[in-house]
Amino acid sequence: MRNLDEHTITEAVLARHGDAPDPRLKEVMTSLVRHLHAFAREVQLTEAEWEAGIRFLTEVGHLTDAKRQEFILLSDTLGLSMLVTAMANRKPAGCTEATVFGPFFVEGAPVHHNGDDVANGASGEPCFVSGRITGLDGEPVPNAEIEVWQADSEGFYDVQREDASHRARARLHSLPDGRYHFRSIVAEPYPIPHDGPVGKMLAALGRHPWRPAHLHFMITAPGYERLVTHVFRDGDRYLDSDAVFGVRSSLIAQWIHHGKGAAPDGTHLDTPFSTLEFDFVLNRSS
Amino acid sequence: MRNLDEHTITEAVLARHGDAPDPRLKEVMTSLVRHLHAFAREVQLTEAEWEAGIRFLTEVGHLTDAKRQEFILLSDTLGLSMLVTAMANRKPAGCTEATVFGPFFVEGAPVHHNGDDVANGASGEPCFVSGRITGLDGEPVPNAEIEVWQADSEGFYDVQREDASHRARARLHSLPDGRYHFRSIVAEPYPIPHDGPVGKMLAALGRHPWRPAHLHFMITAPGYERLVTHVFRDGDRYLDSDAVFGVRSSLIAQWIHHGKGAAPDGTHLDTPFSTLEFDFVLNRSS
Repeated sequence: MRNLDEHTITEAVLARHGDAPDPRLKEVMTSLVRHLHAFAREVQLTEAEWEAGIRFLTEVGHLTDAKRQEFILLSDTLGLSMLVTAMANRKPAGCTEATVFGPFFVEGAPVHHNGDDVANGASGEPCFVSGRITGLDGEPVPNAEIEVWQADSEGFYDVQREDASHRARARLHSLPDGRYHFRSIVAEPYPIPHDGPVGKMLAALGRHPWRPAHLHFMITAPGYERLVTHVFRDGDRYLDSDAVFGVRSSLIAQWIHHGKGAAPDGTHLDTPFSTLEFDFVLNRSS
Repeated sequence: MRNLDEHTITEAVLARHGDAPDPRLKEVMTSLVRHLHAFAREVQLTEAEWEAGIRFLTEVGHLTDAKRQEFILLSDTLGLSMLVTAMANRKPAGCTEATVFGPFFVEGAPVHHNGDDVANGASGEPCFVSGRITGLDGEPVPNAEIEVWQADSEGFYDVQREDASHRARARLHSLPDGRYHFRSIVAEPYPIPHDGPVGKMLAALGRHPWRPAHLHFMITAPGYERLVTHVFRDGDRYLDSDAVFGVRSSLIAQWIHHGKGAAPDGTHLDTPFSTLEFDFVLNRSS
């Protein structure tokens, strides 16, 4: 190992990991080093390009803080997040598919009852969301914990605002027959944060930063696998070009638009509103 | 592109880069995405491992500043830097080989004349370094700019010390016959900075952070390719396990130890000293 060159360097690095005490770490790093070196060889990466890569990663690191995770954006926009999510969530046909978690979930969302308005002042047309949670055999899943979060009419999540209020974000539980229902606002498309290095990368690649309108759900119930997914709004112009590759056909649903009048919760609304019905099918945990 | 899954996601990402205006960027990103996804599939990367990766890169980014480049350390310790260096410096047989640049070069090193002591107070046994710079046909290369830098007896470069003095770092020029000579100190092995995430990675892989003793050279002359290389000290215990994979057999040389007495510069030394003779052969630029 005294005479390394471009042909021998990869095996030399892997040999150095021969005594790694954790076999899984060794397996992961072996594959990582092989693919990293194969990439550099395949494109004949130049010293200037390597330097540009170091500068890019440094910028990504410096922009990342408690409120902004630029490395996750990088993973999302390169499709890695969706790949890892898909591999980790192989389910039998008939189960609701998972999609990317995204960077806007927060712990400690306010607990609500079915029927509550969870918007808490978030801007947007009222939307009444309802559906049923079952298992694969159609059995209702009562008391499932449902976390829901979404962007407002301007495309921002509450956590992107200056004040710390929870808006359009809630935790509630399914009823004995598996049903759930709440009032919120209509989800709108929005661009992922694109004022940093990942945004520059997208622009250089001729890509836009937009995500189609969607509602996030995380559903947890004893005896079932946790489901992290979105419901996407049919007709959105970005369904075929989601910046983070999260769209799955089975997750697209109709938001039905209604004129002002009687709403599903029995009230009378002076403004138009929408309704969305979506059922979730959970996979039993093994 | 509405129904992405673990099998279709890679081609979906690449299709999105179809309109990238810069063909080289498109080529590099195509290979990068393919290898990144192939890595994740090959090891069936879990969500927890992906999260650990995000945390690791975040730590690397946060430790990186003007004086500490943890991403370069990461590239160095995974052998990527040496691979890129080797690919960028293919030279005819007989030319001095290149090796990694490292993070300790600084612009503006003090200018010295041949024969000067460049240690400037750096601790270590005196070392008299000399040699000749030629082209492949043996022609002397006069007036080549030679930058030299190295660690002291405690394994630190001047830039790692609190005060900003240049020590054991100099710029000088070869004489009309291509020869150069200066006084400095004996180079010693040292660990790369390993109090950060890269150090933790090395420990988890059962690797040590040490580099064998070496002297850095960067040599520039009109009509020739710039040469960035080290001279390694024969007998060093880390020659077979350099933490950054920089060793090439042709760059190993003898530091010859002498008792106190007459030194090569004509002075009489009251302490032991060493001498090193190393010739460099430059490649003509095309």
